[in-house]
Amino acid sequence: MADSQFDVLCIGNAIVDVIAHADEAFIADNKLVKGAMTLIDADRAEELYGRMGPGFECSGGSAGNTAAAAAALGSKTAYFGKVRDDQLGSVFRHDIRASGVAFDTAPANDGPPTARCLIVVTPDAERTMNTYLGACTELGPEDIDEAVTAAAQVTYMEGYLWDPPRAKDAFRKAMAIAHEHGRKVSLTLSDPFCVDRYRDEFLHLVEREVDILFANEEEIISLYQAADFDEALQRVRGHCEIAALTRSEKGSVVISGDEVHVVDAEPVGQVVDTTGAGDQFAAGFLYGYTQGRALHACGQMGAIAAAEVIQHYGARPEADLKALVRKVGGA
Amino acid sequence: MADSQFDVLCIGNAIVDVIAHADEAFIADNKLVKGAMTLIDADRAEELYGRMGPGFECSGGSAGNTAAAAAALGSKTAYFGKVRDDQLGSVFRHDIRASGVAFDTAPANDGPPTARCLIVVTPDAERTMNTYLGACTELGPEDIDEAVTAAAQVTYMEGYLWDPPRAKDAFRKAMAIAHEHGRKVSLTLSDPFCVDRYRDEFLHLVEREVDILFANEEEIISLYQAADFDEALQRVRGHCEIAALTRSEKGSVVISGDEVHVVDAEPVGQVVDTTGAGDQFAAGFLYGYTQGRALHACGQMGAIAAAEVIQHYGARPEADLKALVRKVGGA
Repeated sequence: MADSQFDVLCIGNAIVDVIAHADEAFIADNKLVKGAMTLIDADRAEELYGRMGPGFECSGGSAGNTAAAAAALGSKTAYFGKVRDDQLGSVFRHDIRASGVAFDTAPANDGPPTARCLIVVTPDAERTMNTYLGACTELGPEDIDEAVTAAAQVTYMEGYLWDPPRAKDAFRKAMAIAHEHGRKVSLTLSDPFCVDRYRDEFLHLVEREVDILFANEEEIISLYQAADFDEALQRVRGHCEIAALTRSEKGSVVISGDEVHVVDAEPVGQVVDTTGAGDQFAAGFLYGYTQGRALHACGQMGAIAAAEVIQHYGARPEADLKALVRKVGGA
Repeated sequence: MADSQFDVLCIGNAIVDVIAHADEAFIADNKLVKGAMTLIDADRAEELYGRMGPGFECSGGSAGNTAAAAAALGSKTAYFGKVRDDQLGSVFRHDIRASGVAFDTAPANDGPPTARCLIVVTPDAERTMNTYLGACTELGPEDIDEAVTAAAQVTYMEGYLWDPPRAKDAFRKAMAIAHEHGRKVSLTLSDPFCVDRYRDEFLHLVEREVDILFANEEEIISLYQAADFDEALQRVRGHCEIAALTRSEKGSVVISGDEVHVVDAEPVGQVVDTTGAGDQFAAGFLYGYTQGRALHACGQMGAIAAAEVIQHYGARPEADLKALVRKVGGA
């Protein structure tokens, strides 16, 4: 690859997470879709927040979490995402910059407030997400900085960006710039319901545009409406240069042409909150990839980063990721 | 005591905590007063926040923490404190109400934003607090709801309320109403530096107005400028009906007239973040007191609540406090 200013550019919905504990009855009483990400409007957000217990706020957003972790690992990382010029927007900006990520997307000066994701964590450590997109709907092609995109080895985008309508155009612009400059385009399918919403468009992307695909078992099965994981795995090989498919405690499978690497999950103590596991896997993987590591090691780095984040609340790393990946030769 | 609608009314600075990890060098480089609460202005808050690492936000404020925990224990609890009508103010209001506390102080519609406390937690679990008072400076006598105050068994106030100038008048009004209705007035000295700032006024309060005093070892020594804890203890007895003096891992001493109860600290596993230990002690103690429990049991309940909060980040309880105090006959 040509010399690059950034290892990884992440583009996504810039969201502040609001995390609270809840029991199974709360999920049922409020008709939440357990384990999924559901889009909600401002009224529903207010209603649901009013019913939630006391919580805490921390910066989130799928690609934002990946950016923060990639930077923690030592990658030169940039992020594009839209907040408003409000208090939660300041929190988001502070946290991602304090993580070492270059973040210069102009905040919206009017329109809806900074996005928030109301996350309830049940005693089984599963997270159920309810996202009010707010200012994320303002992200457009004008927010794609051409110089930064051209200078990033990998441009990584979340499937969730297909939800706010103008973000698609931003997404397409970024892909075009990246490919024009011989860079790689990476996508995470984000969520099985998100795949359901945009299956045809995602299939088109995966077949023609995406170099490095991230998906979990449910998402890749949903994408191809396959009978099982093996069928989905056969379908995806050949479409992307690399597909990294995660299977929770069963580890991951990394496919590239004829190569198939089965990577074990990292052993964990107590699983507290699974929020961000996929985001962190992508961060570890892309860190390894942009350091020129073999695919199996990339998968291991992804597994290590994912294991760290599920052992505490919040979707961004707390432990020293550099130290953790050192055992597989990272950092 | 006459029939009362509330067990405990807490009055304090309504603050959202911003918590981040930092090493000892950060404390030194930024000239922070380790372990203390330092008041900062808006510019300093912005500067310090800009230097802090990624963090998370949760509702705090000393008396707010006490209110949330008292409610968690089952006390009928109310809270007075001033936020602005901004996003962090909404977070504060949501969290304290979701904890079961009656909170109806009108938010400020203009003026400075909701207060925040920038808390850095060092690897030794010590917290260093830097408070921008913001909207708390707007709290005044008009915010003291007479009916609620008259109907609360105990009105508990934080010494920190002596910092925003108009809050003193609110404080005095609340004390007068409480005593007029045969209720108890309780005060925490809050912080040794706070005692330094207002020693004469606090001495006057302790000698003439306060029925139930909370202080830690440093604070009570500072109040009387005593040579040691024993001297301070002899000085305070007789002034207040009850003094509950905490000594971190050495437990607490509860004095009332001729009674002196030495209460052990509750054993803890890993101490993670000491923020809120004093606030939680007061909550446990006041829960026991308003349930008519003996003073030694009140001290034990305080110790149990304090032990819970220092084993996780954030200053409000996460575990089921009712279950925890059951072993000493609570809840």
